[in-house]
Amino acid sequence: MKLYSYYRSSAAYRVRIALNFKQIEHRIVPVNLLKLEHQSPDYLARHPQGLVPCLETDSGQFLAQSGAILHFLDKLYPNSKLLPPDPFGAAKIQSFVDMIACDIHPICNLRILNYLIIDLKVDTQQKLVWYHHWIALGFTALESMLTKTKYCFGEQITLADVYLIPQVYNALRFEVDMTPFPTIMNAYQNCNQIDAFIKAMPENQLDAI
Amino acid sequence: MKLYSYYRSSAAYRVRIALNFKQIEHRIVPVNLLKLEHQSPDYLARHPQGLVPCLETDSGQFLAQSGAILHFLDKLYPNSKLLPPDPFGAAKIQSFVDMIACDIHPICNLRILNYLIIDLKVDTQQKLVWYHHWIALGFTALESMLTKTKYCFGEQITLADVYLIPQVYNALRFEVDMTPFPTIMNAYQNCNQIDAFIKAMPENQLDAI
Repeated sequence: MKLYSYYRSSAAYRVRIALNFKQIEHRIVPVNLLKLEHQSPDYLARHPQGLVPCLETDSGQFLAQSGAILHFLDKLYPNSKLLPPDPFGAAKIQSFVDMIACDIHPICNLRILNYLIIDLKVDTQQKLVWYHHWIALGFTALESMLTKTKYCFGEQITLADVYLIPQVYNALRFEVDMTPFPTIMNAYQNCNQIDAFIKAMPENQLDAI
Repeated sequence: MKLYSYYRSSAAYRVRIALNFKQIEHRIVPVNLLKLEHQSPDYLARHPQGLVPCLETDSGQFLAQSGAILHFLDKLYPNSKLLPPDPFGAAKIQSFVDMIACDIHPICNLRILNYLIIDLKVDTQQKLVWYHHWIALGFTALESMLTKTKYCFGEQITLADVYLIPQVYNALRFEVDMTPFPTIMNAYQNCNQIDAFIKAMPENQLDAI
């Protein structure tokens, strides 16, 4: 498999964790967002939204959107399952995941921050206030859903960890004060002891600057 | 089951469609966003994000986030399945769904538009340009993923229709020109012939104003 990835993309980071965690043989193909490689005709033919990540399967089929990719990988590679078999237990984890996937990450990502600056002419300070506002709102809800265990939901890695760790990494880069979120930080620190998570970190990517 | 819903919420609208389509016995409990009922302590105890929808199961458990609710219902009620059994086919539909769930809807919903107006002091015109920008970008990608069949992906309703129809409804309310999206509009018109979709429309809700 090939994963089209950008080192700082949180959505690509999620898929990198899962590929490592499930020990799926793969190759990372860097797509440089700053050089607009995601807007090239070649890349748009693979992924019409022009976003990362995009998975290319061994049979040459393309799949966009980290959520769809992660569910596909979890079905195809049932080792190290990311969701428990109990439907309501799985749904509670998916609910946590969707809060990050829908209500935190897309509002705080590069294309939105660029629109604020370039089109709405907001200043850097207002951009940071925007970012911190949605992160604090989202993390407050996430923190209230967790109880302190090794990882987000118990002693096993789940899809919740795969989503949370890249979002916290991103928040730390934007200097969010994480003191109000001790349970989130506990899971973050424990996950980052695991090789699959360490290897997926932005600074450990080939395209890291 | 109970569904906490607001008539104009696109995310609640998705779940209303699925509940009708799968003929699941349920009761709609309106939550008035304009009266800030979603911020009341009672509601926040059910759903820490204070958003709609929220599902209450027959055993009194709460589940937030439309994506998690829809997958849970699709597992629990395997009649009228919303995803095909083939993993890659299901993943392609999920990819389409995630483009709406992550990259269109959350950027264009009420809390974001309110933040633009109240906190960033953008004018009504700029707010509309914002809305139309993300809708056009998203719908262009979605349109390119469809071929003209009865519904989004063939002759059967799938999760793609459950997500697309509320988003198009919302776009029409904001007077988006849908001429560049004929395949989307074809699926929209065909779905809206079906009772499950008609009954779920905002104007057919008890709390519609």
